[in-house]
Amino acid sequence: MGTTQLETAPEPKYWHLKTVISEALDSDFAVGEILPNERELAARFGVARATLRQALEQLELEGRLQRRRGVGTTVAPPRMGVDVSTTQHQWPGVGEDTAWQAVDGTRAIAPPAVSRLLDVEADEPVHVVRRLRLGHGQPVAAELLYVPASSVPALSAMDAPSGQARARGVLRELQRLALCGQDRSVELGSARADDAKELDRLPGAPVLVVTTRYLTEGGISAVSVATYRADTCRLTFGDSGDLQIAS
Amino acid sequence: MGTTQLETAPEPKYWHLKTVISEALDSDFAVGEILPNERELAARFGVARATLRQALEQLELEGRLQRRRGVGTTVAPPRMGVDVSTTQHQWPGVGEDTAWQAVDGTRAIAPPAVSRLLDVEADEPVHVVRRLRLGHGQPVAAELLYVPASSVPALSAMDAPSGQARARGVLRELQRLALCGQDRSVELGSARADDAKELDRLPGAPVLVVTTRYLTEGGISAVSVATYRADTCRLTFGDSGDLQIAS
Repeated sequence: MGTTQLETAPEPKYWHLKTVISEALDSDFAVGEILPNERELAARFGVARATLRQALEQLELEGRLQRRRGVGTTVAPPRMGVDVSTTQHQWPGVGEDTAWQAVDGTRAIAPPAVSRLLDVEADEPVHVVRRLRLGHGQPVAAELLYVPASSVPALSAMDAPSGQARARGVLRELQRLALCGQDRSVELGSARADDAKELDRLPGAPVLVVTTRYLTEGGISAVSVATYRADTCRLTFGDSGDLQIAS
Repeated sequence: MGTTQLETAPEPKYWHLKTVISEALDSDFAVGEILPNERELAARFGVARATLRQALEQLELEGRLQRRRGVGTTVAPPRMGVDVSTTQHQWPGVGEDTAWQAVDGTRAIAPPAVSRLLDVEADEPVHVVRRLRLGHGQPVAAELLYVPASSVPALSAMDAPSGQARARGVLRELQRLALCGQDRSVELGSARADDAKELDRLPGAPVLVVTTRYLTEGGISAVSVATYRADTCRLTFGDSGDLQIAS
């Protein structure tokens, strides 16, 4: 990659193999094509199965390969740019935005870290809205939106049903609050079993966890913890979402 | 995490173990403490080595554990929030910002994806500045900053030396360009051997790759590809960088 230091860094055994396979993917395989099984691949490249597996794992991390249950290992399409920098004064996925689908609404105790962010007592139940974000018709993120009762006071008065209707009720009430701003963080995580299922991944798969704080005049009115597929998504920030780069 | 769907999702074997270890980390271990070896841990929790290893890998992905060469597995401190959303009109790490250290400067062919972003010919060499970003005195990111000759025309006239002095020359010239904006993307990658070395990680370790396009009146004047440690960093965006959450 145009640096002068590669000579001095020790390259692990599978590293060269990774490059060789990567080139083979470019020249001999089409996007979506199923790779031969590990035994055949190891024979083709003249390497041990363990070395092959390491190289394949790296290529999966880098988004070049996808492992799908019941299908096998396929050549991945380029990652999809997913914009996570909504306008500062707009609630994402509320109103006409059809990319977000409300799946479920409950009342539950938030995880301790979320309770702290929301500044509610650790044992105080909050509204929890579960949403799914779609990109090009595929699920790209599973989100839990935590909303303290104090943010949506009108809701407690109504006899809120559970499930999807409840989720929509919370979102409708949220929309009435004027957003002053939002901030977010991105970090590496592993998919919980429930998120993994919705995202068609195996539990424990690496994911990008985007945590957003929504600020209104009353303080932090909601916190969203969204789990994005790390294999198919590239999160984009800023005015142009067409940033297209292979790492 | 307060959802109603956990019953229906299949939990892999090591999942429960992960939770048990996570609780043990909270109660029995201090940050920085070295964990007993795998054999001892497997015996303590009454599980097979393979199951234990899977649980430890998950906890490493989630930032709870760190594996360090020559040290072993230690309890990780909370991830460090690293702000990657600089003011739209300011070059990051240029001028008085001491968080970025210029390590090296060369001229080289950029990777194809970067050449496309910069809109230069695939075989046209560009200036490549290698920088290291520090957070609390620790290396948190290794960056390659690609700058076409046309962005810094004054530089080609001078007899630019190589290495650090050259890097500083490119940065000094860049600073003269007024930035109109910048956009970035975040995606999962694996550490190249040279980056891994600078970040004190093993090659292939999961990293967060932040790609930034710098826009000036003349178009895209530079592209930065920065590799952040995924184990110790939480990337923050927005006005407040104090977002503190455990995934």
